Amino acid sequence: MSSRNISKTVIKRLPVYLRILDNLIRRDVEIVSSRELSLESGFSAEQIRKDLTYFGAFGTRGTGYNTVFLREKLLKIIGLDQKTKIIVIGAGHLGTALTRYNALKNPYVEIVAAFDRDLQVIGQKICGIEVLPFDQAPEIIRKHNIKVALITVPADSAQEVVDKVVENGVTAILNFAPAKLHAPEGVHIHNSDLTIELQSLIYYSTAEEERLSRLKQGAEEEKSQKMLKLE
Amino acid sequence: MSSRNISKTVIKRLPVYLRILDNLIRRDVEIVSSRELSLESGFSAEQIRKDLTYFGAFGTRGTGYNTVFLREKLLKIIGLDQKTKIIVIGAGHLGTALTRYNALKNPYVEIVAAFDRDLQVIGQKICGIEVLPFDQAPEIIRKHNIKVALITVPADSAQEVVDKVVENGVTAILNFAPAKLHAPEGVHIHNSDLTIELQSLIYYSTAEEERLSRLKQGAEEEKSQKMLKLE
Repeated sequence: MSSRNISKTVIKRLPVYLRILDNLIRRDVEIVSSRELSLESGFSAEQIRKDLTYFGAFGTRGTGYNTVFLREKLLKIIGLDQKTKIIVIGAGHLGTALTRYNALKNPYVEIVAAFDRDLQVIGQKICGIEVLPFDQAPEIIRKHNIKVALITVPADSAQEVVDKVVENGVTAILNFAPAKLHAPEGVHIHNSDLTIELQSLIYYSTAEEERLSRLKQGAEEEKSQKMLKLE
Repeated sequence: MSSRNISKTVIKRLPVYLRILDNLIRRDVEIVSSRELSLESGFSAEQIRKDLTYFGAFGTRGTGYNTVFLREKLLKIIGLDQKTKIIVIGAGHLGTALTRYNALKNPYVEIVAAFDRDLQVIGQKICGIEVLPFDQAPEIIRKHNIKVALITVPADSAQEVVDKVVENGVTAILNFAPAKLHAPEGVHIHNSDLTIELQSLIYYSTAEEERLSRLKQGAEEEKSQKMLKLE
């Protein structure tokens, strides 16, 4: 089966299954049912069975899936059966936080280096990972055949950074810069725009407040109508 | 028009329009066409016109939208016409990065306080914002009528934190903890799971590499077939 046929929404669910399986295996759980996977993930058991059958993982009826076997299968499909080498461009606060987090908590990636242009941070180490001058990025990307980059630079230099890393072989970018970035076909850019996330959330908090005040108002009106009836 | 009728995908586009308008206004641009908005946002001009008509913003045919007017309109719809008071729970590296970023770069929110349980960080200030003991969160939430919280605590304490802040009035949560969280109806939780993002991106980088190697293999085969023909 060609990996290109898998839809984006399925791809987003696979790492969720993987995390659940990692937790189960840590607790020595050998078998998991689609129902249990459903409770842990929030996806329907039917959806999960469909996803997994699609990847050739078949559960045993009435018992479930072998956790270790299913995990191995998922690692291969996602491409995590070997550690993925990644780089971080931008070693400010967010870049540092992401570098630390992945260095300490993500067993599936190896951060080869972080890059920055600020002389104040160049030469520093983040959990043993060196911050190098951005000029050295092309050399490092080629040397280690790096395909994945995290970008946490300011919006106005993000496109230039993307151009440079793509030119040297990067094909997948997780972008935290609040900017619309362009890349040639075949290069994947995922935007993780925290301001946009926060603002759309604020919309819901406002709407919720309005809704509550409308509900309260409704209750008040009902109450005063009741009082009118009593008079 | 009730704000409850707007779909989630539209809500996600509004802050994008807002950011573009902010940039245009900074450059003293008074009028913007749906075509220009399309170029900047990546959404189709048709989609943009539809979204904006929906909110009662009508452009002038052949010219476009008044940037200042449209921005005011969007601020009201999203609920950003007044600064939104938010809190950050978890003042580790990610929490600190998010606090700093919003304090310095996000004019639409006011971070009232950050909270942590670690005595090493309690009492510190992040861009003038104090890190308080988590025990004080209920009091602060009630006092400032806070509806929005950013959560960057470890996965195993995330649910407890959600329960506590929701109990005290928070209705919208941006969660960075790698955990599936539960909240009563009416509370919105947006999950920003950076590991899941990264892993699904790795899938694409692998698939891309495979695709390239298949293409290369195909080219090699074609080449050797040509050579066979030459013989």
